[in-house]
Amino acid sequence: MISRQSARLVADTPAIADAHFRAEAEPYHPRLRPGGYLNLGTAENRLLWDLVGARLAELPPPTEQTARYAPLHGAPALRERIAALLTKTCRAPIDADELVVISGATGALDAIATVLCDPGEVIVVPAPYYGAFDTDLGGRSGATLVPALLSADDGFRLTAKAVDRALTEARRAGSVVRAVALSSPSNPIGEVHPPGVLADLLHVVREHDVDLVTDEIYAHAVFGDRPFTSALDPAVNPDWAERTHLVWGFAKDFALPGLKTGVLHTRRPDVLAAARALAYFAPVSTATQDVFTGLLDDPAWVAGFLAEGRRRLGASYRHAADLLRRHDLPHAPAEAGFSVWLDLGAWLPGPEQPAADGFAAEERLWRDLFETAHVSILPGAAFHSPRPGWFRLCHTLDAALVAEAIRRIAAHVHDTGLDHEKGNRP
Amino acid sequence: MISRQSARLVADTPAIADAHFRAEAEPYHPRLRPGGYLNLGTAENRLLWDLVGARLAELPPPTEQTARYAPLHGAPALRERIAALLTKTCRAPIDADELVVISGATGALDAIATVLCDPGEVIVVPAPYYGAFDTDLGGRSGATLVPALLSADDGFRLTAKAVDRALTEARRAGSVVRAVALSSPSNPIGEVHPPGVLADLLHVVREHDVDLVTDEIYAHAVFGDRPFTSALDPAVNPDWAERTHLVWGFAKDFALPGLKTGVLHTRRPDVLAAARALAYFAPVSTATQDVFTGLLDDPAWVAGFLAEGRRRLGASYRHAADLLRRHDLPHAPAEAGFSVWLDLGAWLPGPEQPAADGFAAEERLWRDLFETAHVSILPGAAFHSPRPGWFRLCHTLDAALVAEAIRRIAAHVHDTGLDHEKGNRP
Repeated sequence: MISRQSARLVADTPAIADAHFRAEAEPYHPRLRPGGYLNLGTAENRLLWDLVGARLAELPPPTEQTARYAPLHGAPALRERIAALLTKTCRAPIDADELVVISGATGALDAIATVLCDPGEVIVVPAPYYGAFDTDLGGRSGATLVPALLSADDGFRLTAKAVDRALTEARRAGSVVRAVALSSPSNPIGEVHPPGVLADLLHVVREHDVDLVTDEIYAHAVFGDRPFTSALDPAVNPDWAERTHLVWGFAKDFALPGLKTGVLHTRRPDVLAAARALAYFAPVSTATQDVFTGLLDDPAWVAGFLAEGRRRLGASYRHAADLLRRHDLPHAPAEAGFSVWLDLGAWLPGPEQPAADGFAAEERLWRDLFETAHVSILPGAAFHSPRPGWFRLCHTLDAALVAEAIRRIAAHVHDTGLDHEKGNRP
Repeated sequence: MISRQSARLVADTPAIADAHFRAEAEPYHPRLRPGGYLNLGTAENRLLWDLVGARLAELPPPTEQTARYAPLHGAPALRERIAALLTKTCRAPIDADELVVISGATGALDAIATVLCDPGEVIVVPAPYYGAFDTDLGGRSGATLVPALLSADDGFRLTAKAVDRALTEARRAGSVVRAVALSSPSNPIGEVHPPGVLADLLHVVREHDVDLVTDEIYAHAVFGDRPFTSALDPAVNPDWAERTHLVWGFAKDFALPGLKTGVLHTRRPDVLAAARALAYFAPVSTATQDVFTGLLDDPAWVAGFLAEGRRRLGASYRHAADLLRRHDLPHAPAEAGFSVWLDLGAWLPGPEQPAADGFAAEERLWRDLFETAHVSILPGAAFHSPRPGWFRLCHTLDAALVAEAIRRIAAHVHDTGLDHEKGNRP
């Protein structure tokens, strides 16, 4: 028998990780393993290793200081460099002393949720949302996530009204609501939230007197016309900055997810003290902190690297979107992030299924794509999508692999008799 | 307002960390800062950097594989190498699939306590014990630590009887007891537990039907005549191995505490699954895992390094013990670890204090040593010592610094009028 608190966690282990490792174990290769798996399920940016790897190879080896105990919420040198970067990115003053370096964005989300919530208390999250939020925000803290359902009719754009409604309903149902958590830019949609929407959202959050957790891990992964606006930008957040807690990390923007380095920024002194105490349990290796201190040491290199990253990301997205259009596969337009949000609702199998069982059909299609076409993309249910049939496809890998995956998906839905299902959907 | 679960943690932040950073901020230097602090409070091994640093400098830079997502409970290559090392150390079969790599021994202790206990459930710990156990085992899990008091009369040697008594009393008081946690070799005493005592302890643990957590982070730090015996060794543990969970890490034996890399070994499948789920929140950077995979890659180097480590550790201990004897400062003899357990009970200030206030007097002496003599050692109260007046002094740094620190302690107690207190103690 294990504890109730850990049994809950085992039951909740996200399917995302499992699909990733199965697909990675037998990868596609045009010659060596033409029937192998194509992993477009994981939001990994594989477009930047030539730039990052070269820089990493230049960094000096660890010093004696590296070997020693260091402040467990992050070395001052690293926090100062991150603060300087995020001050520019967020157009908001980020103080190094308000930053907690911690084991990945997961660690930062776990920390802020644990600080704000006791078990059973509620965090409202606009949905569809990053599926691992359930584990990251709720797994250890015991917080309950309540989705604020966005509408498929406008491509799941964020609205303050949807959040207001979810907050009101959760309270009416007797829940203690502590926070709203937001991905900005959004994941899986890839929306860059407009300043007006963010301002409206902050108004709602303030009206309900709850904190805002803003996960801006894709802050530099913006390739559309609309520039990124942080929820900490005084232009949209003139009076709720102390109740707004920022999460960021090196996994996406620097394409180094294996190094598991994230930060939490907060201006609330009580939250900061508690987050530092939690960082004690999930600190980042000093050797890895040195790597990032070295990477950020040259602001000119960083600026050039991030600009090139955005350029490559935009090209990768346009390549994927063009292929999808050519194969007659609809998707919501993205302006940021590593993925496209694909609408395969027209091909959900089984007219025998009543409409309410749409998510069962979505799972069947997902399983078929994985087992038959050997393509790993993630079903909308993993993101609490309000409507069945949507899938997240990550395009940030070799363009030939993306082309092969989209070809297989198109072949699966167009050529295996699923087209005739189209007419059967309500 | 922050959550109750995190408020509890902030209140419990260990004093050890604070003293460390204050002392490190103004370190003693014979010429540049002769009045500076001598930090003998932190169990850091500073005797091995010439060997470790040279090896680290030889390791190759991170590869593209390093940059990517990896299993969050540790890369197979690292787990296999750790398993091979610990199989020899523990004289017990350690399977790589039964290992969870996690953020330091702290992460491993937090994970096993969270898996075994719900909030309010009890872990019995022979005392004096490593002070951070309170945070590591109880801080996030909510488990309550109950000391099994060992006797000052035989130098706080471990006895199964003391553990039996504490288990029986805790149950009589209505507690749900889940486990016994042990430091082996012990910290702060530096005892290498004899096989007979371990066998007796395992008998008691089995009789009470609780799990054993054995923290063997000092397994290779043995310099006395008695060889190390793991609680997993079939010779002492023929039938309770599935309920025995091992914690180990690279902080002590490899003198790399900054790299925050630990492991939990367990043969209970339900515990293993839950510990893996918890490692999701505190994984080790792949770059740092690569460092340790590289370090362990050459078993001959490792064996030579560990042997040299034991040799230097023994010399360092004998140097400190000799100085203490020459200065007439009594201590319990050690066979392992980085510290000596110093008995300053004869010099506790204040005959005006009743005996019950001995710990207040201990704290005054600790504060005086820190503020006046600028020597940081840790008071026994931080280790739940059953009797006031004991202090942990770590000797694993430059011999000249150890000599200066012992000289200052001796001068403080002998020359500042404390000697006359000796006769006043009961």
